[in-house]
Amino acid sequence: MKTSQGAAALASHVETRGRVLASLASVVEQRVPGPMETRLAEIRSFLSDDLSAVERDLDGIQLGSTPMHESARHLLTLGGKRIRPMCVALASRIGGGFCQAARELAVASELVHNATLLHDDVVDMGDRRRGAPTSRILYGNAASIFAGDWLLVDALMRVRRAGMSDVLDRALGVLAEMLEAEALQLERRGRADVTLDQYMQVVRGKTASLFRWAMFAGGRAGELDEASCARLERFGEAMGVAFQVVDDALDAEGETDVIGKEALVDLREGKVTYPLMVALERDAELRSLLAEHLQSGAATLDDATAARAAQSIRASGGATEARALAQRLVDGAIEEISNLPDKPATHVLVAVAHAVVNRRN
Amino acid sequence: MKTSQGAAALASHVETRGRVLASLASVVEQRVPGPMETRLAEIRSFLSDDLSAVERDLDGIQLGSTPMHESARHLLTLGGKRIRPMCVALASRIGGGFCQAARELAVASELVHNATLLHDDVVDMGDRRRGAPTSRILYGNAASIFAGDWLLVDALMRVRRAGMSDVLDRALGVLAEMLEAEALQLERRGRADVTLDQYMQVVRGKTASLFRWAMFAGGRAGELDEASCARLERFGEAMGVAFQVVDDALDAEGETDVIGKEALVDLREGKVTYPLMVALERDAELRSLLAEHLQSGAATLDDATAARAAQSIRASGGATEARALAQRLVDGAIEEISNLPDKPATHVLVAVAHAVVNRRN
Repeated sequence: MKTSQGAAALASHVETRGRVLASLASVVEQRVPGPMETRLAEIRSFLSDDLSAVERDLDGIQLGSTPMHESARHLLTLGGKRIRPMCVALASRIGGGFCQAARELAVASELVHNATLLHDDVVDMGDRRRGAPTSRILYGNAASIFAGDWLLVDALMRVRRAGMSDVLDRALGVLAEMLEAEALQLERRGRADVTLDQYMQVVRGKTASLFRWAMFAGGRAGELDEASCARLERFGEAMGVAFQVVDDALDAEGETDVIGKEALVDLREGKVTYPLMVALERDAELRSLLAEHLQSGAATLDDATAARAAQSIRASGGATEARALAQRLVDGAIEEISNLPDKPATHVLVAVAHAVVNRRN
Repeated sequence: MKTSQGAAALASHVETRGRVLASLASVVEQRVPGPMETRLAEIRSFLSDDLSAVERDLDGIQLGSTPMHESARHLLTLGGKRIRPMCVALASRIGGGFCQAARELAVASELVHNATLLHDDVVDMGDRRRGAPTSRILYGNAASIFAGDWLLVDALMRVRRAGMSDVLDRALGVLAEMLEAEALQLERRGRADVTLDQYMQVVRGKTASLFRWAMFAGGRAGELDEASCARLERFGEAMGVAFQVVDDALDAEGETDVIGKEALVDLREGKVTYPLMVALERDAELRSLLAEHLQSGAATLDDATAARAAQSIRASGGATEARALAQRLVDGAIEEISNLPDKPATHVLVAVAHAVVNRRN
């Protein structure tokens, strides 16, 4: 690219960024949820250079042609929200910026996420993900197990290269937390009783811990002070829980004929969504109905029972409660970062938090 | 323990160690393979304090009661040769001794080994290991997958605590090598053609790389200089290959009615022993016979074909060649460490090398 072209591109980029920020500021100001698609697109536009760099790095590791490599490549190229790299990038931009270390850590956060998905799909015998057959369906369980291991090791190499030993130690700690949560979920397979405590333990371990790490890692890469990094960590933790809780609400807001049948599948895998947990807690009849079906090893619920379950989940108001909980978490998260340096990235981070809680897909 | 008792125990320990060394020295001097059991017992006696510490640490991580934790505990408590921790301990004792860092690294080497076994057994649907049902049979595939992940993370935490960044970087590099070798093996599933190059690539990645790391890690923990650590690394690499090649020879020296049927199972899993590789290379008829059975998806070889395969593997002389190759590798390995400090551990290391190549089980 010639210099004049480069300058023009830069000017256009700065202009875009200006427009994006103005729009984000108005959204944040009004606290009115705009159309989610628009908002996420604006955030992506603000981070477009950072996210492009992340994508290039993700493409770059896709060497090799064994089933293991193909298995990892398949999942990575299907995309996903890349919300963890966004967290790293934004946190780094509240500090000194999206430097090489931040880039390594952003890629690592996405690789860890994908590694867990590869193993989860083997464990849960999942057939579809991101609108396509899962890697294990295309390349086999064995390839997916090794592919998960491989992405994990690659992620840790990047964290090492970023050169901050506290970030590495926390990465290992987070991996241990994630596995403890997976273990807990595994132990609860086929059980229809679950408490809020157990639910939160799994959500914190499986989802929130990696968000927490992403925010901390970005802050450290941006050379923010200890107190600011701690604030970012708490922001990440709260937002991670909110993210999962909203995911759960979306499930319960879906098609009625799916909700009931999904409940049985989830419980068989030791999973429970927030609304399902609320329904099980309040509707003893539903609890014993599902326990019966789990014990009998039934492949699926008959239509009548499924409708009964869906009705109970809807009537429990769990989805509304979930969104309210997410809103409280996000409000607290935003409060946490209100004293951080007043950078564009800080405002975008607030917008991300609002986007997480108000999303409709 | 009272001081006088402690002193007596120490004196007895020193005396035992003296006897062990004299015996080892005579074995090494004569280069006559003594009974393998005696020799390994002598080496273990020399390292008894170190290995006890390793066992205590391995016991210590067995917290938690989920299927994931039980799965890891089951494999770890079944024991195994603990040959990788022995390598770390001996290398450290050529230097400053079996310090806390060496202990962490010794435990880590065993955890990595066990992590790969847990995943391997899921991938190969293995039913028995170390004379007992595999973890996946007792606690399920899912628990074994997470247990492998968990041991890997725990191992890396220990490597981090040992505090040498080059040892950590090499640990991650070795994990990547191990996975590349697993991937290669996976790709070769169901194929009856294999070259020496492909065989060596898998053995180096799957087995030798971790021995290489164990020797390097021990040397670094013992604060040996760079050149000595490099020598230890080359020793570990050669000994690791020798270890696997002798394992393969032992297979071919086993019961005739097992050898032939095992060949089909191995090829289906992408595995090939050294003697089988030699037989396939030299006996085109065997190659097409096995290829046919692999393609047909036959569960097992009929008795006549199995006998035919076993006869070819025996007649190829591959087992003898394997032991000769192992002997050459071990001779080279011993040459590598001949200029290292003349410590008791150096002599024991030589004895370990001889033991590896002459073992009968």
